[in-house]
Amino acid sequence: MAIYQDTALDRTFQALGDGTRRGMLALLAEKGAQTAGELGDPFDIAQPTASKHLKVLESAGLVSREIDGRIHRFTLAPMRLEQAQDWLETHQEFWERTLDRLDQFLKTTKDSNDE
Amino acid sequence: MAIYQDTALDRTFQALGDGTRRGMLALLAEKGAQTAGELGDPFDIAQPTASKHLKVLESAGLVSREIDGRIHRFTLAPMRLEQAQDWLETHQEFWERTLDRLDQFLKTTKDSNDE
Repeated sequence: MAIYQDTALDRTFQALGDGTRRGMLALLAEKGAQTAGELGDPFDIAQPTASKHLKVLESAGLVSREIDGRIHRFTLAPMRLEQAQDWLETHQEFWERTLDRLDQFLKTTKDSNDE
Repeated sequence: MAIYQDTALDRTFQALGDGTRRGMLALLAEKGAQTAGELGDPFDIAQPTASKHLKVLESAGLVSREIDGRIHRFTLAPMRLEQAQDWLETHQEFWERTLDRLDQFLKTTKDSNDE
């Protein structure tokens, strides 16, 4: 059951489990390369906090860092995002069926209440 | 920037950041309602560990629990999974473009190496 012990996927989802980090990824996806400062600014957080978030994203393989003197520049490394999406899509068919069953159940309940 | 402070989405991604929990969701998606015991068995984990994982999934709104005497029965509550997928899909177009740029870059590099 290799898929259940995929620590890379663990790190991806864990990194996505924070709104600021998702915001940074969205920013990188939209604007391309950004410095650490540019990535911290919109979220009104101190630079050490921004750095910590960027470290989590980097160790999850979601961003790449390029160091140019004192400037750290980040770019999106979207491969891992694709893998997270793949996991969700693999199971989508099953849970859509669950949602359909729920719809059906609610409809049946509603119909019998209407009678 | 409401999307960046969505604590429900935080909890969803955090809950997905563990292989055993993803396995439990896959099992529920495939087989429908399962007891706590049935959900713990395939992962070779002690019942208290299984219970902890199920509590995380429950508080993330990913599973529903139904108590019948001593039996706790779980079903998939896939709405939150859909929201996680929605977030990834919203940004997909952007990071696909990033992947395309990477492809293009690698191709250009390869071409100039081949010359």
